[in-house]
Amino acid sequence: MARNWQWYIERVMSCEAHMHALTGTIYQGRTQFQSVGIVESPVFGRMLIIDGDTQSAQLDEFIYHESLVHPAMLLHPIPQEVLILGGGEGATLREVLRHRSISRAIMVEIDQEIVNLSQKYLPEWSAGAFSDRRSEIVFQDAGEYIRNSSQHFDLIISDLTEPFPDTPSSNLYSVDFFYELKNHLSSPGVLVMQASYADIQQFDLHSILYRTAQEVFPIVRSFSARIPSFNAEWGFIIASQELDPLQMQEDEIDRLIQKRINGELRFYDGETHRSLFSIPRYKRKVLEKEIRILRGEEDLMPVESGEVF
Amino acid sequence: MARNWQWYIERVMSCEAHMHALTGTIYQGRTQFQSVGIVESPVFGRMLIIDGDTQSAQLDEFIYHESLVHPAMLLHPIPQEVLILGGGEGATLREVLRHRSISRAIMVEIDQEIVNLSQKYLPEWSAGAFSDRRSEIVFQDAGEYIRNSSQHFDLIISDLTEPFPDTPSSNLYSVDFFYELKNHLSSPGVLVMQASYADIQQFDLHSILYRTAQEVFPIVRSFSARIPSFNAEWGFIIASQELDPLQMQEDEIDRLIQKRINGELRFYDGETHRSLFSIPRYKRKVLEKEIRILRGEEDLMPVESGEVF
Amino acid sequence: MARNWQWYIERVMSCEAHMHALTGTIYQGRTQFQSVGIVESPVFGRMLIIDGDTQSAQLDEFIYHESLVHPAMLLHPIPQEVLILGGGEGATLREVLRHRSISRAIMVEIDQEIVNLSQKYLPEWSAGAFSDRRSEIVFQDAGEYIRNSSQHFDLIISDLTEPFPDTPSSNLYSVDFFYELKNHLSSPGVLVMQASYADIQQFDLHSILYRTAQEVFPIVRSFSARIPSFNAEWGFIIASQELDPLQMQEDEIDRLIQKRINGELRFYDGETHRSLFSIPRYKRKVLEKEIRILRGEEDLMPVESGEVF
Amino acid sequence: MARNWQWYIERVMSCEAHMHALTGTIYQGRTQFQSVGIVESPVFGRMLIIDGDTQSAQLDEFIYHESLVHPAMLLHPIPQEVLILGGGEGATLREVLRHRSISRAIMVEIDQEIVNLSQKYLPEWSAGAFSDRRSEIVFQDAGEYIRNSSQHFDLIISDLTEPFPDTPSSNLYSVDFFYELKNHLSSPGVLVMQASYADIQQFDLHSILYRTAQEVFPIVRSFSARIPSFNAEWGFIIASQELDPLQMQEDEIDRLIQKRINGELRFYDGETHRSLFSIPRYKRKVLEKEIRILRGEEDLMPVESGEVF
Repeated sequence: MARNWQWYIERVMSCEAHMHALTGTIYQGRTQFQSVGIVESPVFGRMLIIDGDTQSAQLDEFIYHESLVHPAMLLHPIPQEVLILGGGEGATLREVLRHRSISRAIMVEIDQEIVNLSQKYLPEWSAGAFSDRRSEIVFQDAGEYIRNSSQHFDLIISDLTEPFPDTPSSNLYSVDFFYELKNHLSSPGVLVMQASYADIQQFDLHSILYRTAQEVFPIVRSFSARIPSFNAEWGFIIASQELDPLQMQEDEIDRLIQKRINGELRFYDGETHRSLFSIPRYKRKVLEKEIRILRGEEDLMPVESGEVF
Repeated sequence: MARNWQWYIERVMSCEAHMHALTGTIYQGRTQFQSVGIVESPVFGRMLIIDGDTQSAQLDEFIYHESLVHPAMLLHPIPQEVLILGGGEGATLREVLRHRSISRAIMVEIDQEIVNLSQKYLPEWSAGAFSDRRSEIVFQDAGEYIRNSSQHFDLIISDLTEPFPDTPSSNLYSVDFFYELKNHLSSPGVLVMQASYADIQQFDLHSILYRTAQEVFPIVRSFSARIPSFNAEWGFIIASQELDPLQMQEDEIDRLIQKRINGELRFYDGETHRSLFSIPRYKRKVLEKEIRILRGEEDLMPVESGEVF
Repeated sequence: MARNWQWYIERVMSCEAHMHALTGTIYQGRTQFQSVGIVESPVFGRMLIIDGDTQSAQLDEFIYHESLVHPAMLLHPIPQEVLILGGGEGATLREVLRHRSISRAIMVEIDQEIVNLSQKYLPEWSAGAFSDRRSEIVFQDAGEYIRNSSQHFDLIISDLTEPFPDTPSSNLYSVDFFYELKNHLSSPGVLVMQASYADIQQFDLHSILYRTAQEVFPIVRSFSARIPSFNAEWGFIIASQELDPLQMQEDEIDRLIQKRINGELRFYDGETHRSLFSIPRYKRKVLEKEIRILRGEEDLMPVESGEVF
Repeated sequence: MARNWQWYIERVMSCEAHMHALTGTIYQGRTQFQSVGIVESPVFGRMLIIDGDTQSAQLDEFIYHESLVHPAMLLHPIPQEVLILGGGEGATLREVLRHRSISRAIMVEIDQEIVNLSQKYLPEWSAGAFSDRRSEIVFQDAGEYIRNSSQHFDLIISDLTEPFPDTPSSNLYSVDFFYELKNHLSSPGVLVMQASYADIQQFDLHSILYRTAQEVFPIVRSFSARIPSFNAEWGFIIASQELDPLQMQEDEIDRLIQKRINGELRFYDGETHRSLFSIPRYKRKVLEKEIRILRGEEDLMPVESGEVF
């Protein structure tokens, strides 16, 4: 057996990292906004890496993208107009377009090169979504787009990178921004967002985002899925004025999937919904007691820096 | 900030590994059977490492041990006599003894030194369980013990290492051995076992054990919990002639916990039960289609060896 | 500062390895004979990696190639015909061709793809040497070539990979093969070879090769240079019937360089010669006491295998 | 073969690191001044690690300490009083005391705990030197000691850590400090110092220290030895008003060793002297062209920080 000599080391905390042997490097470079790698792992297949962090992997991107899109979409009685913030690979858009009710899906992504690289090297991620007649791709900062738009959407899907200081996302997770988003939701309307690590040792940001959303929406639900290529249980949040995913019944979900979604889902169904929204006791306690609120950039926790070894 | 210079690198597949910075090494040596490390991680606290694999960590051992013990214990109407195979740290025994109905708990562990080291360096794991008057510790090979015993138990808990070739556990997971275990169960009786990785990229052994148990027991249920220090979703299996954990209701579980268990649980309750036993769609498909059965050592998959880099 | 996420980890012993962050992967694949990587390191520039081992790097290949070629070439009164075994990158050939006396340089390399990849991605290594009218490139096993050739050479330069079992070089370092080489040397003639690690903790193979050459040649000299990209002091051996590099005077070397070599050298000159051939006391002791002789493949030390972590 | 799971990763540049598997951790903690590890490597034996950097290792500390001490000691006609700055392990002192002419050796070390830990865990390093009647150990900052002392020494040996900002050594390598040292030398007198990495990719600090010493001393010589446990060619500098190590003859050195040193040396002798002081051409060029001078702390290059992966 040949030696593994090329490794992707993903640092997740100052003193924790994961090593993936690579069999190929498809692309390595910098866009205007971030550093990008597209690599080949014998375990996870093609992986998209931005600024050293795994964004999605061929083996399990369906888990992430089905979790982000379908619970929120099926929660809405008939989602027609959807806004996606971020989501450069196009897989979130792909899942949205599978819903028969969709008439228009706008994706606002700051980094055009990510979209181009994804189309070229990760074509199964978007699977034609970018050229679907219902899609509209806007290359703009998500905050700028929202502030200048007067439209309303049935669903807003936040697929942004995490709000670290000095990144494009640093002001896209505050109370103020959540109010902006609420003001762009139709009635009924649903906001869903990827919401960072949801493991016991890295639960802070998720918990704070959960509490922050509660300042703006009466119904806020945390859920999570195990994403092996992230080496994490990954958190999501659904927020709404009217609609509550905890009210969805398993058999109803299975029926809605049949009725409203084209093709077969691999991850999500009624029983999976239960697994997503059932929260172990110790995490519920943390969420219940959370008092921290992100009011603006000044509340952001700095990314751990310093020397790793 | 000081550099991290000491690392525990846990290989989990030939081309995947995890790096934990260490702030201390409490113990490093070999017992008669295996190599042992007890280390200090700033994230996971004390960690017990056997043959290079994480066995349990201070931060999240409660997740593993509560998952292994309480669903099976509460499934049984009134568990009094329990047999634990393996479980050297003593935390499985600790959780068993919290159940008020227990009159006798026998733990059969091949490696006495692991027990001694755990008592010395990881005292919170056993928390006095070894000296509980209901406990009986036998230092013997689990297979040998079972073959020479004529006792029956309400519960058998298999907390053994995985069945890799040339390890003490290599013949403790076959159809034949499961028959042996069934013959030592009372009626009603429950077998629960730790059952390896349950992530998409490392699902084989779990799936095979699930199918293997089905050769012997009419009711076999797979469940899993996210254990961050294992960098994994970890699988468990409950098998029984009569009792089905899928029939347990959330509020009933919450009531039983109050009634039957001393102290407060951190991980397990009704909602957690739902999260443990809800299986995402793609894994259910794999389990349904599994046909491989472990009939004996010859069916074991070799541990990946070869050079890692 | 951006994180380093892509690393080349070069294992050098079962429990020693070196990590180089990479900023690019130029090529990654397999030839008929070996796995090949061409990568970009911010420190060492382009690096050629074969079967996980660094072959040469942009920053310091001049140290390796000047050490291998010039002392032996200047030792010979007027080298005209030279045979190179291995040396796929073309840099050994490049250095040979700088000597004005050279009329013919034959390079015998088993792996044509290495030559092609080097010309394409590492053009400065060969710097036009492959198309020099004095060069002749033969794609053949070096042993086969030698056995079938009746030519004699002023210099034979062995730039082969190390004699590990089951590699193309496994039988190209024995007493018998050294006799073959001697029989293809003119009189006077010089054999020079790269001769593995020459550090205290990895001195065995070098020392054995040194002793093995003494079975065949009356004059055998060990020398070494520090090659940072190899993370090693690297050993070489000069063997001859008549000529002794220890007799060369510093100022004579400086004069010969002026007279016989085109262009300027970066590494080698009189003082450097002294540094190459001065051996610290503890290594001299090891070389003096060495009794092991490589008589054939059966004497080869196995490459360390087993699991690294 | 068992897996290696515990590793010492020594970062040497932001994008270069070395991995040593460990079989034991003898000590891990912090003194008043620095973090300390004493570990066991199967290759290098016991290793002393300060702030993540290897200080010395059982296998090859003789190379470092003989290089630091003996050339300078033998250069002096009859060294009687010697001052050592730093050198906490005691091995520099040990080598000094082997010289029969020594009547007094003062060692000034800021960190008493390093001395205590070394005596306890690395007793062969000092080998009784601390209790030799000629030894005097002062626990004080080296700069403070020098400024307050009116003594003169035949030799001053600087075995300090490197002058990184915000470390105890940050002001112990400037022109001013070298003047202080010169003022404490007898006539004739010799200053020798460890002088950082001397490899092509990490030559800056060595080269600057060399140039800085030239501001103060008429004779300044760079020399270097390969120290495998440092993964480096390691630089030293000898500076003097009168005495030049390049004038020492090989056979004279061998005679002086016999005459003036107790016991047998493992590394240093006449031929080794030649290897230490012969500088490859490309490094000589760098040293000749160097113009940077360390005038004080403001000239220090910051330690590379930032995130490593």
